[in-house]
Amino acid sequence: MLRHWARLRRGLPCFVTPRNRAQGTIPPTGVPQRFSHKLQGNSPAWLVTSEKSKDWAVPNPSWSQEMMIQFNRFMEMTKDGRWRKLPSYRSYSDHLPEGLQKEELQSQKRRLFLRNIDREGMGFEYAMFMNLSEKRVAAVFQMGPYLEGPSGFTHGGAIATVLDSMVGSSVFSVSRRIVTANLNINYRSPVALGSVVLVDSRVDKIEGRKFFASGEMRSTDGQTLHAEATGLFIELQPQKETDSSSSP
Amino acid sequence: MLRHWARLRRGLPCFVTPRNRAQGTIPPTGVPQRFSHKLQGNSPAWLVTSEKSKDWAVPNPSWSQEMMIQFNRFMEMTKDGRWRKLPSYRSYSDHLPEGLQKEELQSQKRRLFLRNIDREGMGFEYAMFMNLSEKRVAAVFQMGPYLEGPSGFTHGGAIATVLDSMVGSSVFSVSRRIVTANLNINYRSPVALGSVVLVDSRVDKIEGRKFFASGEMRSTDGQTLHAEATGLFIELQPQKETDSSSSP
Repeated sequence: MLRHWARLRRGLPCFVTPRNRAQGTIPPTGVPQRFSHKLQGNSPAWLVTSEKSKDWAVPNPSWSQEMMIQFNRFMEMTKDGRWRKLPSYRSYSDHLPEGLQKEELQSQKRRLFLRNIDREGMGFEYAMFMNLSEKRVAAVFQMGPYLEGPSGFTHGGAIATVLDSMVGSSVFSVSRRIVTANLNINYRSPVALGSVVLVDSRVDKIEGRKFFASGEMRSTDGQTLHAEATGLFIELQPQKETDSSSSP
Repeated sequence: MLRHWARLRRGLPCFVTPRNRAQGTIPPTGVPQRFSHKLQGNSPAWLVTSEKSKDWAVPNPSWSQEMMIQFNRFMEMTKDGRWRKLPSYRSYSDHLPEGLQKEELQSQKRRLFLRNIDREGMGFEYAMFMNLSEKRVAAVFQMGPYLEGPSGFTHGGAIATVLDSMVGSSVFSVSRRIVTANLNINYRSPVALGSVVLVDSRVDKIEGRKFFASGEMRSTDGQTLHAEATGLFIELQPQKETDSSSSP
């Protein structure tokens, strides 16, 4: 995977030909819709880009200079259309099409785990980018002071949260009906609070309904491997779609 | 481990003889002081119970009836001294003895990842209990609506965070100088937001400086296994303690 890190850092357009797929069909979230078919009953609850909801995966005053440099590098990579920035909303319901189900969910005041802090810069600050042709998601994360575990360093659970989301998102580029079965994390080097890290994840193998994916968290210069993870995801059987009220 | 779940649910005093260890020496935190020696330089930064800081591992109005039932059951188990409730503060610095280092850290406004939400009941609500003689930590958790992953269900990263903290805490009952090397999680059944779960963790094996531990998250009736984890922790070599300013 090291050569991919080198590419990411340089931002070179050295990726393979993208799939012939309309941009509008690219899943617009960085958080996988796991269990969605199972949990939504017969509702497909297809995720859609929301024009009414705020996209949090954009710069704000809390972003450090290093965060901005990495974000801008990623944005450069989106120019030929092979990479695409994934909008990131505060709750799952923001990803749903307008309708009764969305209104009901929004009344419950839930928030996505990675976007649950009100104050900018205190929790996770991040932007994710998807490359469909490579079944890959890459991201830049800034670790805020509310993610503490050991003194001055990011909690192991916060690192697991990032890797879970990233590895799951790479699988989400292939299938939307996935459940996580296993996540295995090797912690290599602690992540200081306030630091900016790069995360790269991809689908490694598909065997029937089993999806094997992996991810790495590294320093922005690529020299320090902070953590690496493998994930096993199971694709659920599609359910009969009888509820048209929540279809796009 | 099933027999331990049965005990936990019944709250029966069927545990083995505790170590002959003064209560005051029991580590007072539910979050392991990983990397502490490494990260604090020569400062031992021993964790102490703080009389000035608020203990968040106590009932508040957001706790459901089920949460109260489980908490009270655990509290019953503390009466013979074999189990002890671990106070839980909002930041690492709250666990430090009074002194310059504590003041400096508190000025940085950090928060422990599991206690970073201001509004009661929206994030993790929990209380942890330690049994030193069994090298074991058990806990009750209530999963708030700000921990969302899939619609209506707890994020896989939040589950990983709970298991990381719990498995690490069980090792912390044996050694305070640990770093997490590996965390391996099997997700068995999703955890609905708002639900109350029991988590049980223990040290399984010690081989030199390697500590092997495991943990499980189950429904309060013990019938549903939500997730299970194993962890490998490495004990750091003790460092020479030359900085007396932060000693208790």
